[in-house]
Amino acid sequence: MEDKIRIAIDAMGGDRAPRVVIEGAIKAASIYDYQILLVGDTRKINKFLNIYNGYPKKKIEIVHASETVKMGEPAAASFRKKKDSSIAVGLKLLKEKQADIFISAGNTGAVVTASTLTLKLLPHVERPGIAVIFPTLHEPTFMIDVGANIDAKPTHLFQYAVMGEAYYRYILKKEKPTVGILNIGEEESKGTDFIKEVRELLKKSKLSFVGNVEPREIFKGKVSVVVCDGFVGNIVLKVTEGFAEASTQFLKRELTKSLLPKIGAILSLPAYRAIKKKIDYTEYGGAPLLGVDGAVLIAHGASDAAAIKNAIRVAGEYVKQKVNEHIVEQLVEYGKELQING
Amino acid sequence: MEDKIRIAIDAMGGDRAPRVVIEGAIKAASIYDYQILLVGDTRKINKFLNIYNGYPKKKIEIVHASETVKMGEPAAASFRKKKDSSIAVGLKLLKEKQADIFISAGNTGAVVTASTLTLKLLPHVERPGIAVIFPTLHEPTFMIDVGANIDAKPTHLFQYAVMGEAYYRYILKKEKPTVGILNIGEEESKGTDFIKEVRELLKKSKLSFVGNVEPREIFKGKVSVVVCDGFVGNIVLKVTEGFAEASTQFLKRELTKSLLPKIGAILSLPAYRAIKKKIDYTEYGGAPLLGVDGAVLIAHGASDAAAIKNAIRVAGEYVKQKVNEHIVEQLVEYGKELQING
Repeated sequence: MEDKIRIAIDAMGGDRAPRVVIEGAIKAASIYDYQILLVGDTRKINKFLNIYNGYPKKKIEIVHASETVKMGEPAAASFRKKKDSSIAVGLKLLKEKQADIFISAGNTGAVVTASTLTLKLLPHVERPGIAVIFPTLHEPTFMIDVGANIDAKPTHLFQYAVMGEAYYRYILKKEKPTVGILNIGEEESKGTDFIKEVRELLKKSKLSFVGNVEPREIFKGKVSVVVCDGFVGNIVLKVTEGFAEASTQFLKRELTKSLLPKIGAILSLPAYRAIKKKIDYTEYGGAPLLGVDGAVLIAHGASDAAAIKNAIRVAGEYVKQKVNEHIVEQLVEYGKELQING
Repeated sequence: MEDKIRIAIDAMGGDRAPRVVIEGAIKAASIYDYQILLVGDTRKINKFLNIYNGYPKKKIEIVHASETVKMGEPAAASFRKKKDSSIAVGLKLLKEKQADIFISAGNTGAVVTASTLTLKLLPHVERPGIAVIFPTLHEPTFMIDVGANIDAKPTHLFQYAVMGEAYYRYILKKEKPTVGILNIGEEESKGTDFIKEVRELLKKSKLSFVGNVEPREIFKGKVSVVVCDGFVGNIVLKVTEGFAEASTQFLKRELTKSLLPKIGAILSLPAYRAIKKKIDYTEYGGAPLLGVDGAVLIAHGASDAAAIKNAIRVAGEYVKQKVNEHIVEQLVEYGKELQING
């Protein structure tokens, strides 16, 4: 009999932790046959856990961690000072093979720093990258890096392309994902010298490289994997979130100004909900931190219980599909040609 | 008697030129007392102009240009090869003081290149920058540069800040506009070395510098002027446009799936139109190309007649308020302290 997949989750991470994390874990436990390790303050976790009845109790364990990293806390300091934080303890479980994957909706910077320092990097990887999935009208767009590394070199982006392609292939199930580079303009002559160097590497590789991807193409879903440096990627992610937020506020204000639009809005509610669900990337179960020697998923700080449940579902796939093993194989294979790895 | 303000406009520039440009010019001519010079193919312009009656014919002149720069045409080549394009002729009018300002909804790259080479730069300016206005729930956010210069140095961003502040003060009418720098995270320690260098310059200056501005803040309208390098700025602009476009498509698809949401959508139409108008930055009359020695406004390629009319309104203000003179004064004043200018 094969061992059950063990998923450690930071019970203290996220805007509404530990409540929503626990709710999400309970939802997941009733659907999937995974062992879930809730990492955090035992007393607080039990307080919430005791509210629920009838969930499969054997599938949920608590692993105590006495400290919590706050959302705004500086990453490096939190790693140095809080040795018994839920992030540190969760990653230790991973490092010591007591868990197969770690999920956190907590402080992203702290998770990236602690993961990199605790787990180290996969062979042939120089920097880890965070990848997010943008839902589109066609296939999802997988963008990497969105903020793990703001001082990127061209070889880092080549590695992001290879890692992103492997993740897309095994988790989003597409045989030959395409790869592009985020740039301003589609022509080959466009972009900074940095972009041009990355393009040379990707062109020479055996990846299905399609060239430049303009920002608006992210939302069209015509390219599977889009690489960019972490500064630009983080800006893209936050502009999208900020604009979506502002548009919603605009819409609310306009729709409630007079009666007819208000009635209209009520009739249209199911459509809005459908969209909200569609453009909500937490539906895809969190952002993988690719390149560290261990499986780590970063969920959005605003995750609700459903998002946590989805993250647990994807975490199971990540482990089953042995994504990290495929990443290393592909880095060796693609890198060999370019003579930059191995 | 003071001379009338003379506004040259590229009749051949934009997705629906010359028709919408001519319509916009006619609308403007019936409201404002400006002399409008339509630059382009005389025969084509007359064909459209003849459709309309009763507009103030004396206020609209045609200046012939035999060539047109296409939307996708490489900028440098278009400048070299098409000496009689509507862009080249319009800028020549400006250079020779036969016009006070030039507006084009044509190929942005071509307008930037031709403006820079024809007009040269204002004293103390090292690179021109394109600025756009983001409408928000509070005050508009003025972002510079959104793509004129993708190889920016810290001093360029300092100059953008000074130029943006002057434009905001005189055109958007605010006595002491605040200035921030686009960054990922609000803390001072965040960002690339480039960002940190720019921040040092802005901190030392007498500008009302508020520090880092996170991407989501762009849409909140709490900082008047946000500076960034042209690569990042262009990405922000295009992500916003692309996401707005995709959301609209999502919404349409969901709203028309069944009857009630469809009725709801119809009742809500006026609200949608109000929003579309509000988030449409062409309402603010085009993006100024700041830093060139002459007044140039770049209108969106998708501009309709109302957007062209608005651009003409803003163009008049730009000239009346002597924005470029104020820019040079402020560059001298603010630069003196930092010992980086004049």
